[in-house]
Amino acid sequence: MPITSASYSFTIRMRLDSSPGTFARVAAAIGEVEGDLGAVDIARSSRDHIWRDVTVLAMDRKHAQRIVDAIGTVDGALVEQVSDRTFLMHLGGKLAIQSRVPLKTRDDLSMAYTPGVGRVCQAIADDPERAYALTIKKNTVAVVSDGTAVLGMGDIGPEAAMPVMEGKAVLFKRFADVDAWPICLNTKDVDEIVRTVVAISPGFGGINLEDISAPRCFEIERRLREELDIPVFHDDQHGTAVVVLAALIGTARLLDRELGDLRVAMLGAGAAGTAVARILVAAGVRDIVGVDRHGIIHVGRADAAHEPFSWWCADTNPRGITGGLDEALDGADVFIGLSGPGLVTSAQLERMNDGAAVFAMANPVPEILPEDTPDNVRVMATGRSDYPNQINNVLCFPGMFRGALDVRAREIDEGMKVAAAHAISEVIPVDQLNEEYIIPSVFNEDVATTVATAVAEAARASGVARRTPEGSTPLVLPESHL
Amino acid sequence: MPITSASYSFTIRMRLDSSPGTFARVAAAIGEVEGDLGAVDIARSSRDHIWRDVTVLAMDRKHAQRIVDAIGTVDGALVEQVSDRTFLMHLGGKLAIQSRVPLKTRDDLSMAYTPGVGRVCQAIADDPERAYALTIKKNTVAVVSDGTAVLGMGDIGPEAAMPVMEGKAVLFKRFADVDAWPICLNTKDVDEIVRTVVAISPGFGGINLEDISAPRCFEIERRLREELDIPVFHDDQHGTAVVVLAALIGTARLLDRELGDLRVAMLGAGAAGTAVARILVAAGVRDIVGVDRHGIIHVGRADAAHEPFSWWCADTNPRGITGGLDEALDGADVFIGLSGPGLVTSAQLERMNDGAAVFAMANPVPEILPEDTPDNVRVMATGRSDYPNQINNVLCFPGMFRGALDVRAREIDEGMKVAAAHAISEVIPVDQLNEEYIIPSVFNEDVATTVATAVAEAARASGVARRTPEGSTPLVLPESHL
Repeated sequence: MPITSASYSFTIRMRLDSSPGTFARVAAAIGEVEGDLGAVDIARSSRDHIWRDVTVLAMDRKHAQRIVDAIGTVDGALVEQVSDRTFLMHLGGKLAIQSRVPLKTRDDLSMAYTPGVGRVCQAIADDPERAYALTIKKNTVAVVSDGTAVLGMGDIGPEAAMPVMEGKAVLFKRFADVDAWPICLNTKDVDEIVRTVVAISPGFGGINLEDISAPRCFEIERRLREELDIPVFHDDQHGTAVVVLAALIGTARLLDRELGDLRVAMLGAGAAGTAVARILVAAGVRDIVGVDRHGIIHVGRADAAHEPFSWWCADTNPRGITGGLDEALDGADVFIGLSGPGLVTSAQLERMNDGAAVFAMANPVPEILPEDTPDNVRVMATGRSDYPNQINNVLCFPGMFRGALDVRAREIDEGMKVAAAHAISEVIPVDQLNEEYIIPSVFNEDVATTVATAVAEAARASGVARRTPEGSTPLVLPESHL
Repeated sequence: MPITSASYSFTIRMRLDSSPGTFARVAAAIGEVEGDLGAVDIARSSRDHIWRDVTVLAMDRKHAQRIVDAIGTVDGALVEQVSDRTFLMHLGGKLAIQSRVPLKTRDDLSMAYTPGVGRVCQAIADDPERAYALTIKKNTVAVVSDGTAVLGMGDIGPEAAMPVMEGKAVLFKRFADVDAWPICLNTKDVDEIVRTVVAISPGFGGINLEDISAPRCFEIERRLREELDIPVFHDDQHGTAVVVLAALIGTARLLDRELGDLRVAMLGAGAAGTAVARILVAAGVRDIVGVDRHGIIHVGRADAAHEPFSWWCADTNPRGITGGLDEALDGADVFIGLSGPGLVTSAQLERMNDGAAVFAMANPVPEILPEDTPDNVRVMATGRSDYPNQINNVLCFPGMFRGALDVRAREIDEGMKVAAAHAISEVIPVDQLNEEYIIPSVFNEDVATTVATAVAEAARASGVARRTPEGSTPLVLPESHL
């Protein structure tokens, strides 16, 4: 059955005859076409009429139109205006700047701006590291996209990517108090993207790359990591990898299995799939079989010498099997899909072991719907919020950057990512784990702080942290701090 | 007499013997070295001691040290800690991001982020102009600097420029509710600066260039104006030009003179000086004589064929005079200095007409101090907040961008600048004008809105406005707005 969603909700201003029963007929008409009636307000009224604002949830755009048409056929009802709540929410954008300092008097002005600010500038010129203490760099991340791989829509351009990047910034703020600013680029040239991000980097404490198409995203990330001394993190790859690993750790905890003993079959070896496979290997998974449109990735394939397949050949498929998805699923404990809608059948999943786990991550339509999985599947997860076990990057990136910024990390290394995955999983006590709760909710307030703490510790352990624990920070104020 | 300033204020934590009179002796010691005693708090106390936090205003760093030393000599007083209030204000930076949408439930998440946001993205992909309605572009300005000409400090680098750019963003928000974000570039290459700003422009509604050294600033601004369809405004040039013109209009109103009848001598023909001369010409001033280190700018000079001198030769110095500052000042009504500290003497100003106006804008030390001007000078203005008639760019840029953003202007043209200058001046009713009040205070709440209205009108008149007046905006919601 299709599902109505707040993301397709509309507020309908209707004028109703004041005779009894009119609104009841409207409500019935909405129900007949499976609209989901929400809040109802009275906007105004006269002797003959009453104006109501009615919020209705629909399944999609066509469904919304059917609902509006149905209301129009009700005797005594007239639809005056329809407002799309999602568009209303976006009017004027989703971010604003806030001043952290008062500016009421000339004294305030003389400290926040000229002439006082000059001393602060000079102190940073004497030692640029002081920018962390005396500017917003300490808490600021650029969310950078070229708009080439936005959600499922592909290359829609930088302007059209802005609502997603603003949404990302909202999530950064909401979950980890990180100040993120969207930077959408009107170039798709790899060299120019790298140059631009390097050029704007001095004011930022980290770079979150987002929705950049493969294979360009690999080179861009690699070169930026080489050139910059602040964390660079392509969320579509590494955020996904961290949360998938977290879900796998949760599954292993539930099933009382070791990661190293699980057989994993993966469908999709693009940017996200490769990042997931890499983190699974880093976390100790030993038997991964990757499958793409050409079948199982193995050393005998024509593309085996090219990245990322050379990595897949070297570090996965230890049993050296060949064939397609069927062969990969034979005797597998875990299926991870990062491919496309409906690409896996129930019959194929029956090839897996009993008590199997299926992470069908294609978005918005997964490789297989939870209701269609066979009985041997015990744990089922997707990227969707309307099924249990949502594997959502929001669980990772806010806490990841919070932790990295807190210790002024030079980069985000593999250890920080694995630590983040363990931290996400361990938010759920083992006695609360069950088949429909292997990974915490995105609204679990403990996730970001737990992740941040684990990431900061991992950064200190590996030496990428520039800042020592709280309290031992060297005093950054210069000579003028007498 | 030197002046203490909040920008050099310090909070001193001192431990005092609890015997009577100790604090009185401290206060006396501070007064003896001309420290300015501010707020006094008790931090804690014991039977024998009392700890006080005392705020003291100093003249400069050395003076602050003298004050601390003086306290140290008082019997029964021990200085434990000195905190620089300007540095304390800057800890962690001066800006934060604020989310404009709630994010409390899954429904909120499904509208602000996936899947709902996808429809908003698609609507913008179909028509990128919708970015103005549906993203932050509508209210957002990038404050861009390469850190090469920061205040009086010169090339201090992008990190060290951040506190000024953050301060600028604070002023944008405070005075005109514009959301400005600092972008400090770690390149000084003109081509690369232009490419970078073009690359990041899709998410911004305007570009405020700041503290970029001459002559690079001219080419950068010119090329960005050509390439972008959003306003590009180098505040050091044009903001200064607008406020100087506003001060001149105020002076002309006070003296009941016409701009076209005033003889103006200018010292300094750099970026700001040239922009000032250009706007004065655009506003109707007919007799400007420019002077730089080589003397009066005239057609016989070796550099007369090069920009900006070719412009000076064509559009100024109508009487074709030659010589130096002395000759330029002979019979002048107005002196405008955009040069360096102490470069004009009282004797030189005596060459001007009776009732002369002197705008000595070098910052922080003007060409001549107000107390040193001769009797023929009737109106005296500087860039400083501690003298009357402060000519401060804050009077211009917030309202300028507010007006430009409100009408989605493609650029800021000469008419919008002249309109802004008239608007600033006209905030003061003619019967309130006097020698010490030719230009409004930076804290006058009417300035930004008056400027914004005038700028928007000018943009509509010249055709650079994309948006018609309130109410007649075409409905931007796409088909999904049923």
